[in-house]
Amino acid sequence: MSQPIEFYFDFSSPYGYLASEKIDDLAARHGRKVKWRPILLGVVFKQTGGAPLTTLPLKGEYSLHDFSRSARFLDVPYTHPETFPINTMHAARAYYWLHEQNCEAARAFAHSVYRAYFRDGRDIADVAVVLELATRHGADRATLAEALNSAALKERLKVECDAALAKGVFGSPYISVDGEPFFGADRLPQIERWLAAGGF
Amino acid sequence: MSQPIEFYFDFSSPYGYLASEKIDDLAARHGRKVKWRPILLGVVFKQTGGAPLTTLPLKGEYSLHDFSRSARFLDVPYTHPETFPINTMHAARAYYWLHEQNCEAARAFAHSVYRAYFRDGRDIADVAVVLELATRHGADRATLAEALNSAALKERLKVECDAALAKGVFGSPYISVDGEPFFGADRLPQIERWLAAGGF
Repeated sequence: MSQPIEFYFDFSSPYGYLASEKIDDLAARHGRKVKWRPILLGVVFKQTGGAPLTTLPLKGEYSLHDFSRSARFLDVPYTHPETFPINTMHAARAYYWLHEQNCEAARAFAHSVYRAYFRDGRDIADVAVVLELATRHGADRATLAEALNSAALKERLKVECDAALAKGVFGSPYISVDGEPFFGADRLPQIERWLAAGGF
Repeated sequence: MSQPIEFYFDFSSPYGYLASEKIDDLAARHGRKVKWRPILLGVVFKQTGGAPLTTLPLKGEYSLHDFSRSARFLDVPYTHPETFPINTMHAARAYYWLHEQNCEAARAFAHSVYRAYFRDGRDIADVAVVLELATRHGADRATLAEALNSAALKERLKVECDAALAKGVFGSPYISVDGEPFFGADRLPQIERWLAAGGF
């Protein structure tokens, strides 16, 4: 039995969102599953000195243009959010909380969070929005609200971010296929060939 | 008559090299020509605060891996040079000098420079290597050697770099199709569709 593909992403990453709309189908075409791992790019950037694309001179303006064009290229609906980037701590914590109970529900919640932000312009930094989306996927609102403030759940996300950094994750999306790392939604065609051919 | 596609690149850019092996054929499939414009990323990075990919924490190590894998993906021979990145000032100046006399020779020279560096491991920062490659494409060695030290040719490259920055060029390769900017060899499929469909 082959290992699942590892998909690291931040909920405020446009290219992470684009990959999220494709990665499961791509993997399934090759009989593979995907392990979704939300992380916080803020934590990663503290270690690497990285910065959000849109803050970079010249590249920032280009990126805003490229997000939308790449979405059209991949046939994924996209509206750049008014507030960008944002803190995705609550969303990521809620994901791991849901995942411990029901990994399918966590997957569906992740799609809901991404689409709420990159299609519907909702503020997924707001804990109330995160709770609303999680209840759609079976979470008990009061129980999750309490869990989001618990030391255990905070620690869980910290451990996931540290583990990602230890694996070499420096951005989003970062996709690992049997230890082979691919960075960016634009590497999906390489991943497809890698899975089809067992490397190249 | 449509405008030529503008192809900005630095001779020490791996992804610029990969694009250089594809861009003319891609353009020709859609009845288009390409204007090659070598620039110096060092000059660009002074303005933008950018840095060579390989110097970045975690991303640097990934990039070295991705250069070779992307080359295999595109079926382009690639051997990462021992000294990287390097100063490509002489090569870029020689390109513009040749271009004023014979643009086809300049194009062939650009291919020779890129292949000398990324296939044969030659030191294209060395003016002697640049002169040798240029003579293969019709340059008179002594005349070019003198021109490389002339204020006029230095100014020409400076003007090209400034013009590129003014257009928004922040890295290599940067390809402009009728004003639509594409950054990176991984945008070649988007360029192909853009040319086929007249935008998307």
